[in-house]
Amino acid sequence: MSTTGNGGGEDGGVRTERRRPGRRPGSADTRGDIITAARKIFSEKGFDKATIRGIAREAGVDPALVHHYFDTKEGIFVAALRLPVDPGKAIPAIIEGPRDEVGERLVRFVLTMTADPQAREPIIALMRSAMTNEQIVTMIREFLTRAVLDRVVEGLGIPPIRMEIAFAQMFGVILVRYVLRLEPLASVEVEELVDILAPTIQRYIGGN
Amino acid sequence: MSTTGNGGGEDGGVRTERRRPGRRPGSADTRGDIITAARKIFSEKGFDKATIRGIAREAGVDPALVHHYFDTKEGIFVAALRLPVDPGKAIPAIIEGPRDEVGERLVRFVLTMTADPQAREPIIALMRSAMTNEQIVTMIREFLTRAVLDRVVEGLGIPPIRMEIAFAQMFGVILVRYVLRLEPLASVEVEELVDILAPTIQRYIGGN
Repeated sequence: MSTTGNGGGEDGGVRTERRRPGRRPGSADTRGDIITAARKIFSEKGFDKATIRGIAREAGVDPALVHHYFDTKEGIFVAALRLPVDPGKAIPAIIEGPRDEVGERLVRFVLTMTADPQAREPIIALMRSAMTNEQIVTMIREFLTRAVLDRVVEGLGIPPIRMEIAFAQMFGVILVRYVLRLEPLASVEVEELVDILAPTIQRYIGGN
Repeated sequence: MSTTGNGGGEDGGVRTERRRPGRRPGSADTRGDIITAARKIFSEKGFDKATIRGIAREAGVDPALVHHYFDTKEGIFVAALRLPVDPGKAIPAIIEGPRDEVGERLVRFVLTMTADPQAREPIIALMRSAMTNEQIVTMIREFLTRAVLDRVVEGLGIPPIRMEIAFAQMFGVILVRYVLRLEPLASVEVEELVDILAPTIQRYIGGN
């Protein structure tokens, strides 16, 4: 509700008068309004059917403004769900480089990222919602497929089923390590897990 | 609420009179009373700290009766959570037999069992509760460790971390196949998954 940075002054009443329903050009937190609208639209429509235009309409702003803040639909999704990484940046860094070490790079990336509680928490929260909410499942499945799995599948030229099973291995490890907290898996160092997991992921996605 | 098999007759009032608080020797559904008590005790105390004596006390029956119906604490847990298999019977069948095919036997067993919706549903329900309830997490972790993982670890003489990672792979596959429902993983035949997963599980727990 802060008006800081928006002209200031005790003109709250005037500003209210200038607002039109469903359109808040003078909002103090346009970015926040877009995020709120995006969460609603993504959970209602899923990732595939959501559009920047629809999110802009829901937020009461011009679509150009959504592009300005977030660039792409994927960018909005990452921000709206507070995801710790942008797959569009992270995945090329993993799949480029020596093919015989792609498994190791992927495993180390996932385990290092999730070792940080701040990065891990939004991911765990999303898994939690997915277990009990069918709309959230659809949203996650679509985003995961488009933004993460398809990129690896296309980048490495591998069968989708192999990437899904590799994903299942890493997903399972994160859940067992941080939700079920089985010992010793919950406490071992990242590099010990890399030693055990990298050959598995390499076999699935290395294509050799 | 049926009184069948319990003497019958329209003596509901008399029966009520004969009951003492916390003890229901004349209950028409002693087994059901034990199950209800067990669910409460397991979720409050976890698997390790729950006792047959404590469950009997909660159900208002003699501990000998609990032994009579369910044999062991594990047996009560399996019945109370409607688990589709008794690990004490299923695991020996998997770990005995040729060591170089133990991965394949385990993968085929897990995938065949979970392919049946009736068998799968209680497992998914338990995962669902675990994602949102810390007491359920403790209960599942303890049961899983004692009744499932320790048995394989001891039976095969392997490091616990390797069994936990094997479990994480299968757990992840079940979640991706039946909760997230990523395609093609959600639709492929069991034997196609066995071909891809068996070498992984064999490497983790085969000890070669």
